[in-house]
Amino acid sequence: MKTQSILLKQRPEKTPQNSDFEFKEEEVSTPKSNEVLLKSIYISVDPYLRGRMRDVESYIEPFQLNEPITSAIIAKVEKSEHENFKEGDYVLGHLAWKEYQVAKGENLRKVDPKQANLSAYLGILGMTGLTAYFGLTEIGAPKEGETVLVSGAAGAVGSTVGQIAKIYGCKTIGIAGSDEKIDLIKGKFNYDEGINYKTTDNMKEAISKAATNGIDVYYDNVGGEILDATLQNINRNGRVINCGAISQYNKDETATGPRVEGILIKKSVKMQGFTLQNDFGEKFNEGTKKLAQWLQEGKLNYEETIREGFEKVPQAFIDLFSGENKGKMVVKVAEE
Amino acid sequence: MKTQSILLKQRPEKTPQNSDFEFKEEEVSTPKSNEVLLKSIYISVDPYLRGRMRDVESYIEPFQLNEPITSAIIAKVEKSEHENFKEGDYVLGHLAWKEYQVAKGENLRKVDPKQANLSAYLGILGMTGLTAYFGLTEIGAPKEGETVLVSGAAGAVGSTVGQIAKIYGCKTIGIAGSDEKIDLIKGKFNYDEGINYKTTDNMKEAISKAATNGIDVYYDNVGGEILDATLQNINRNGRVINCGAISQYNKDETATGPRVEGILIKKSVKMQGFTLQNDFGEKFNEGTKKLAQWLQEGKLNYEETIREGFEKVPQAFIDLFSGENKGKMVVKVAEE
Repeated sequence: MKTQSILLKQRPEKTPQNSDFEFKEEEVSTPKSNEVLLKSIYISVDPYLRGRMRDVESYIEPFQLNEPITSAIIAKVEKSEHENFKEGDYVLGHLAWKEYQVAKGENLRKVDPKQANLSAYLGILGMTGLTAYFGLTEIGAPKEGETVLVSGAAGAVGSTVGQIAKIYGCKTIGIAGSDEKIDLIKGKFNYDEGINYKTTDNMKEAISKAATNGIDVYYDNVGGEILDATLQNINRNGRVINCGAISQYNKDETATGPRVEGILIKKSVKMQGFTLQNDFGEKFNEGTKKLAQWLQEGKLNYEETIREGFEKVPQAFIDLFSGENKGKMVVKVAEE
Repeated sequence: MKTQSILLKQRPEKTPQNSDFEFKEEEVSTPKSNEVLLKSIYISVDPYLRGRMRDVESYIEPFQLNEPITSAIIAKVEKSEHENFKEGDYVLGHLAWKEYQVAKGENLRKVDPKQANLSAYLGILGMTGLTAYFGLTEIGAPKEGETVLVSGAAGAVGSTVGQIAKIYGCKTIGIAGSDEKIDLIKGKFNYDEGINYKTTDNMKEAISKAATNGIDVYYDNVGGEILDATLQNINRNGRVINCGAISQYNKDETATGPRVEGILIKKSVKMQGFTLQNDFGEKFNEGTKKLAQWLQEGKLNYEETIREGFEKVPQAFIDLFSGENKGKMVVKVAEE
């Protein structure tokens, strides 16, 4: 049996291009003891993968050239040699960008298509939701009445952060890149205020106008100039959650900006990055339970952008960097 | 009765100059109920005062032009109208740069010249010691076997940080600006390694060589390029305590440097500034007790630079910025 596989052909220089990836047909092996044969249904594309495409030391090892990219994938069990899984089960795993593959059962988690849409396990109930939840609550520690600013607010993580901050009784301000996204975050995602950074000349002023009491917590998905502008509006004892720096991912490492140490000292500000698995891995059950509860109570909405077709996976990934997705971007590569 | 007083004549542009200060003779009033008449004995000069000389929003209000500078001062009670104090008592207070002044008793704390040298209450048992203790233990949270890097290591705060880190079982590396200071920190202050940044071309490499296991905690008293070089050597879950940025104080606010958000994210690093009084004021008793205990047990050495003469106060302050002091700088302005 044959499968298509997507390999990293060359390391992207700036914004990833289709030519950085290669499709290759290969043979699928037969599952051995404790293994399962999987058919990919939904493939998650995520900004953090860009980091793994660099050949530099990071918290996880870089992708190898001419090897398949891996990410979170929802797959259907086609054949099982593992006692926990049977044909027809749906599983979540960190898997290769392949239509079919054999995987060890121990690294897979069963997911229930009746409890939530399958794609939600890649988003609001998966890494995305947990990233929003732990970053905001553990590092940001928002208190009732505080003001929480979120960049990438229409994105998968950002839209969830805003809603959780509202559950905590905070005022929420979201930054996004189109008026349509601003409508979305103020509507579906319950943000109190929205700033379209693409039509705003002076972010420092725009934030100052929206945040009449200053910024207590900034959940940063973008880095760069929006971070700089936020630090100019930060309150004493403010907390910056450095979740992502999508504005910087396609730049080389010598990017400069205003020095931050002066403001950190003057205002007793904390900036902290995190890595979900390493820093909060032991608390995933707690987080997933909270998120599932809020979802059931109707307190969490989510948006997803579903592309279709295995051949569209690289382009879906590339489009993350021009902000074409609303909410979590996944690619549906086969019927459920 | 007359006293000399030191006023802020103009806001320093870069490095403070003697011409930024003005000596003025004025009349000393008579203490009213709950007040005391004080004679200044030791005046503390501190880098953070530079910040208050700017006319910008900060955690404490800026000094006013043509008003006296204030700082921590050890004074002798000359006359008391407050029940807690009698003539001959020594007190610590946040007081004006004057030879004599009247102050409210409620803002003064009695200090005991038999328990420690009077000047120690401005240093190792005062703000300096507490700054070292709380910054390192509360923000840095050093664990046994970790590597702690300290800049300004021969300074008042830095020399104490290193010794506390050793008490916690850490490897300590100090950065200072002369070979004499390096000898001092490796001798008297028990540092395992020392780096003379003035004779080092490549700080990134020098830190890497001294810190064979990378940097877990960086207690930063200087900011700027040494901070940049440290971040290139920081370990996963590293913590940066932004205590001071003396390298930046005399620059304007537009200084730029390498962006930090990428490293914070990649390595789950925390950078956090603090303000002693606001953030840890409620725990001062706990901190002072710990420091006094270590001092008595012989686990803490300290160095101080004592200048003499009230007229030398501005110059002593100015000399902080060229690193002429070893340890806490105080000016003895009258005999005990």
